[in-house]
Amino acid sequence: MTTETLVSADALLEGWQAHRRLTRRTIEAFPEDKLFEFSIGGMRSFAAMALEMIGMAMPTVEGVASGRWAPFEHAKTETKAELLALWDAQTAPLNELFPKIPPARFSEVDKAFGQWEMPGLTIIQYAIDNEIHHRGEGYVYLRALGIEPPPFWDRA
Amino acid sequence: MTTETLVSADALLEGWQAHRRLTRRTIEAFPEDKLFEFSIGGMRSFAAMALEMIGMAMPTVEGVASGRWAPFEHAKTETKAELLALWDAQTAPLNELFPKIPPARFSEVDKAFGQWEMPGLTIIQYAIDNEIHHRGEGYVYLRALGIEPPPFWDRA
Repeated sequence: MTTETLVSADALLEGWQAHRRLTRRTIEAFPEDKLFEFSIGGMRSFAAMALEMIGMAMPTVEGVASGRWAPFEHAKTETKAELLALWDAQTAPLNELFPKIPPARFSEVDKAFGQWEMPGLTIIQYAIDNEIHHRGEGYVYLRALGIEPPPFWDRA
Repeated sequence: MTTETLVSADALLEGWQAHRRLTRRTIEAFPEDKLFEFSIGGMRSFAAMALEMIGMAMPTVEGVASGRWAPFEHAKTETKAELLALWDAQTAPLNELFPKIPPARFSEVDKAFGQWEMPGLTIIQYAIDNEIHHRGEGYVYLRALGIEPPPFWDRA
């Protein structure tokens, strides 16, 4: 290993899936009505944030893999069960498609979703960081509701 | 580039410093009294979270670089100016020490801060993810205070 070979695509995917498991538990921790309705300071509901993450995850990997991008769209649903089902429906496809991203595509610059110009790796890292960020916001919603969020360090 | 050589140490450091710039702007956005006193749902103040990040950042890189770990300690201060000064005081040392981490250390397992057993890279990634997570919490505090947080996508 040299400083040029720190994080592999496999490790990046594994880290993302670990975050996705924690985010799933965060979604689960919300009572259904609060998931879709509760907010602080005029922000979006946690459901809206999770639907953004779903709209971003597989479409990002598909775009980086293929170079073809559709306009960005949030996923849509109005029930917690369906939201969790949409979440789970991406888990296996992410594991399948991510390792097939042609290595050179990670450094090629795309206009992601027709809007955001950056290298493939940066687009993927943005999707992961965006998930961590909004999940952190969701933790405050849960605390404000008197609900203990899932432990941040537990990614099992 | 192969799938085994996706993210270099340089890129990891650069991404972290980009996050640190955004976190600094988040600290700056708080009025001084709210930085140290405001909280939601019994959580810590954003100052306490930022002092945890400072307590984690350089000591993590020092520990991964050297294999020597002191017990974890939050940084301490009671003013916004000093907090920002502590923040800034780590920026150049991080840039200096990070590239000197012996490459093999990223995969060696340590008991970080005498407590958390994981490979060097995982420890560093945890510190970065923890910063993104708590900064997201800080965004909700700012919104609850009627203050617009800095744009998440801007890492300049």
